[in-house]
Amino acid sequence: MGRFPVPDVETLPADLRERIEAETERAGFTPNVFLAYAYRPSHFRAFFAYYDALVADTELTREELEMLVVTVSGVNDCLYCVVAHGALLRIYADDPRLADQLATNHRAADLSDRHRTMLDFAVELTEAPGHVDDADVEALEAAGFSRRAVWDVASVVAFFNLSNRLSVAADMRPNDEFYTLGRD
Amino acid sequence: MGRFPVPDVETLPADLRERIEAETERAGFTPNVFLAYAYRPSHFRAFFAYYDALVADTELTREELEMLVVTVSGVNDCLYCVVAHGALLRIYADDPRLADQLATNHRAADLSDRHRTMLDFAVELTEAPGHVDDADVEALEAAGFSRRAVWDVASVVAFFNLSNRLSVAADMRPNDEFYTLGRD
Amino acid sequence: MGRFPVPDVETLPADLRERIEAETERAGFTPNVFLAYAYRPSHFRAFFAYYDALVADTELTREELEMLVVTVSGVNDCLYCVVAHGALLRIYADDPRLADQLATNHRAADLSDRHRTMLDFAVELTEAPGHVDDADVEALEAAGFSRRAVWDVASVVAFFNLSNRLSVAADMRPNDEFYTLGRD
Amino acid sequence: MGRFPVPDVETLPADLRERIEAETERAGFTPNVFLAYAYRPSHFRAFFAYYDALVADTELTREELEMLVVTVSGVNDCLYCVVAHGALLRIYADDPRLADQLATNHRAADLSDRHRTMLDFAVELTEAPGHVDDADVEALEAAGFSRRAVWDVASVVAFFNLSNRLSVAADMRPNDEFYTLGRD
Amino acid sequence: MGRFPVPDVETLPADLRERIEAETERAGFTPNVFLAYAYRPSHFRAFFAYYDALVADTELTREELEMLVVTVSGVNDCLYCVVAHGALLRIYADDPRLADQLATNHRAADLSDRHRTMLDFAVELTEAPGHVDDADVEALEAAGFSRRAVWDVASVVAFFNLSNRLSVAADMRPNDEFYTLGRD
Amino acid sequence: MGRFPVPDVETLPADLRERIEAETERAGFTPNVFLAYAYRPSHFRAFFAYYDALVADTELTREELEMLVVTVSGVNDCLYCVVAHGALLRIYADDPRLADQLATNHRAADLSDRHRTMLDFAVELTEAPGHVDDADVEALEAAGFSRRAVWDVASVVAFFNLSNRLSVAADMRPNDEFYTLGRD
Repeated sequence: MGRFPVPDVETLPADLRERIEAETERAGFTPNVFLAYAYRPSHFRAFFAYYDALVADTELTREELEMLVVTVSGVNDCLYCVVAHGALLRIYADDPRLADQLATNHRAADLSDRHRTMLDFAVELTEAPGHVDDADVEALEAAGFSRRAVWDVASVVAFFNLSNRLSVAADMRPNDEFYTLGRD
Repeated sequence: MGRFPVPDVETLPADLRERIEAETERAGFTPNVFLAYAYRPSHFRAFFAYYDALVADTELTREELEMLVVTVSGVNDCLYCVVAHGALLRIYADDPRLADQLATNHRAADLSDRHRTMLDFAVELTEAPGHVDDADVEALEAAGFSRRAVWDVASVVAFFNLSNRLSVAADMRPNDEFYTLGRD
Repeated sequence: MGRFPVPDVETLPADLRERIEAETERAGFTPNVFLAYAYRPSHFRAFFAYYDALVADTELTREELEMLVVTVSGVNDCLYCVVAHGALLRIYADDPRLADQLATNHRAADLSDRHRTMLDFAVELTEAPGHVDDADVEALEAAGFSRRAVWDVASVVAFFNLSNRLSVAADMRPNDEFYTLGRD
Repeated sequence: MGRFPVPDVETLPADLRERIEAETERAGFTPNVFLAYAYRPSHFRAFFAYYDALVADTELTREELEMLVVTVSGVNDCLYCVVAHGALLRIYADDPRLADQLATNHRAADLSDRHRTMLDFAVELTEAPGHVDDADVEALEAAGFSRRAVWDVASVVAFFNLSNRLSVAADMRPNDEFYTLGRD
Repeated sequence: MGRFPVPDVETLPADLRERIEAETERAGFTPNVFLAYAYRPSHFRAFFAYYDALVADTELTREELEMLVVTVSGVNDCLYCVVAHGALLRIYADDPRLADQLATNHRAADLSDRHRTMLDFAVELTEAPGHVDDADVEALEAAGFSRRAVWDVASVVAFFNLSNRLSVAADMRPNDEFYTLGRD
Repeated sequence: MGRFPVPDVETLPADLRERIEAETERAGFTPNVFLAYAYRPSHFRAFFAYYDALVADTELTREELEMLVVTVSGVNDCLYCVVAHGALLRIYADDPRLADQLATNHRAADLSDRHRTMLDFAVELTEAPGHVDDADVEALEAAGFSRRAVWDVASVVAFFNLSNRLSVAADMRPNDEFYTLGRD
């Protein structure tokens, strides 16, 4: 898989090994992103610590968070993130089709005003960050997001603009399991 | 400054306070990015831990790292990062003009082949991540980057695609000092 | 479904009814594209006659044809075509993952040179038709396509640039069945 | 002419020969598109049957139909369609200049609100199909198009997104006559 | 015509009046660009003095100069310049069809290598000036342009990037005569 | 400097020599743009005569004129114009930071409505001239620009779309002095 060596899990520092084992237990397989980042332990720690912070300290539901990830990853053409987070979105939204809709075109999904506004913002901040303006933030507030939640939306979008770029540069490939998880 | 509240430093958790004090001592002023992220301490910790990892564990010189940051931030129209990291680049490269050149158009700077190839890659990974290909990685290797260094280049580009987007969403403004640091 | 009335199949002209019944029998459900086009019987006949000609008189394998459709539909953000033809591609290629790869980014799929060249051409003819040049046709020939097969590639790309645009304008929605067909 | 062989009309199936003779009689010369498509008789039949259906079963005037064709073909940089349908537009609109205006920039033509809205929609559906939305359809209705006419507008735009792409891929060249027809 | 007042020629300063009379005599009608610029006599003088310098002091043939103008104006969607300079190109090239070809898509015209390279450069300098590079200049030299002629090519492209923008901002309209001049 | 020979000032025609001496006296150094254009005296005269007319006959303040230049040059990635006119803007606006803000992203500067509208127009006329419309001109008027001032705004934008393109084609480099002028 990919453009960088994948280390043997046994040889990794204990904290990485533990995290990988926990993730493997939770998922039933080892998501490839953990193996890819293990190439550089200090980056592994930083990347997942940031991800954990986004999930733990947020005004967004987990479903909303994954809606953002899948939409942004679709815009950025990132296969790993579309497929792996597509699976998570199917599970958290309890909806077997929403991920394919958002990855292809969020305008073709039946979204609440709140979610349509959220994803319009995500696409703009991804495609043309310099165009973001007070009016965009006000549109989010008018759709029901607190100012604190606006930070969370922007942070998730920003983080996956990082994640998408490292994934494509590393040519990360989604585990086969992700393609079908949550489809029934 | 910006679209989110800036907390009083005195009220922050000790680790944030210590980091902010250390940065203030080092720079002679408190760079606004630290105050902006302090709005959400868990995100502050994650963001700067990632940044620290990129600086500490890398095959790139500090000058190369800042060349990447300024070029990417110019493409993304991010004022805070262009101005603040422009100052860092002037200092680390000991060159008062390189930052303005890269922020405007890296093709108009007198670069070595190594650095021109590095910045061409940075622009492509920023503007069109889905277009990155084996050929791009091979071009970096032909210009003298080890495979390990390719990861570092990609990671810096990816991280500042995060940083640029949060900065513009938060409307972070560079401290006045950054505009002139390292110009003489 | 969608932005135009869907007629009662019972009221349709006999040839449309027969086609719809045949398709329903073949698929086990009535693909929505047949109901959408039935709104205008003369357009229904023309659209499916063209499609039938492309499938019947071609130098491409059916798998190649569906690879083209899914790639083009991904570029054009067309949900109906990505999902419905994604199912067909999974079946004809006997590959449960290729469709998601091509819909997201054909550069992230493990393709033969022949297929990579074919899909590079498809993307260019979709995104920037005026840029197509003798060199592009020669690249297809160098990858093993006869001149006659070049016509077939171009025709499939062209036809789905029609189909994608009518689908999004009509807001056609894929049948639920398409999301999962061929995934195991 | 072009990138594919042009068959001898005498050798073509009778139905193609008859159509070509009828078109030649009508125009006073044989429009090259008929010779180009004759390379593949089954595709010839499908292409012109669709075109005939669009012209025969429509809520648009013939002038409006050709306005759409010329505008879309200008966006797609398709020489054959700009020049051949430019001639048709001059004739149907009884206006020797409208075609050059629309092929260059529909915003620079003196259009009724109805036609400006129609062509704005045509440009969006051509350039960014995934952006089309309920609001665009409502704008057409507000400009006087019935819902049924919206289908016709979208169908013409879609069909010429096919036609433009096959024309450029085949490098079809307009007959000399088309450049001057209807200019006085 | 247009968005700015057109002064009465009788009231203009003598040098403008003389120029306008000379142009009127030469063309048989008064090209609208002279009336449009007469709104601001000092700008009129500067604009036409620059134009005169480009025509008088150049290594390009007049035909090449007009090829550049029509191609650039097509990219910039400028109706006045496409139509007025289209007429000039038909006359100087003694070719009734080249202008329509270049305005639509210079890749669809039968050009010498010299002219194809010249127009590829013109399109790049128009669409993405920051991308121009030593390699582009070397390509022009390889196609037979002296270094001095490269300056002339760039100057014509640059000047009509000015002219196109003022024409569209002023909504200048081509005289009816230009649409047909040189077509037979 | 650059891609074209720079003549010896002593050998230039008297009017060029005088202009260059006057500019040198005024600035304390010879701005490189004068040496670059001196390669072709007739073009030198035309270029600076136009520039002089824009500055002398205008409804804009000199500060506004330089705001336009820096913003347009940032969009066009022109190093010479960003740096040289950045210095002029710092001086005329008596603001050491506005130039860096506008060159990076005019949306990140604290602008009056008048200036925000003016620069939004400048960006549109630069990036997509064919999209300019009556509504854009009306927006300028609503922001306080007379119709005559609209011409001036458009003319400055148009002229620097010329200037930017010749500068990048010639690879003009800003004098070192411009990088620091007006920063304190």
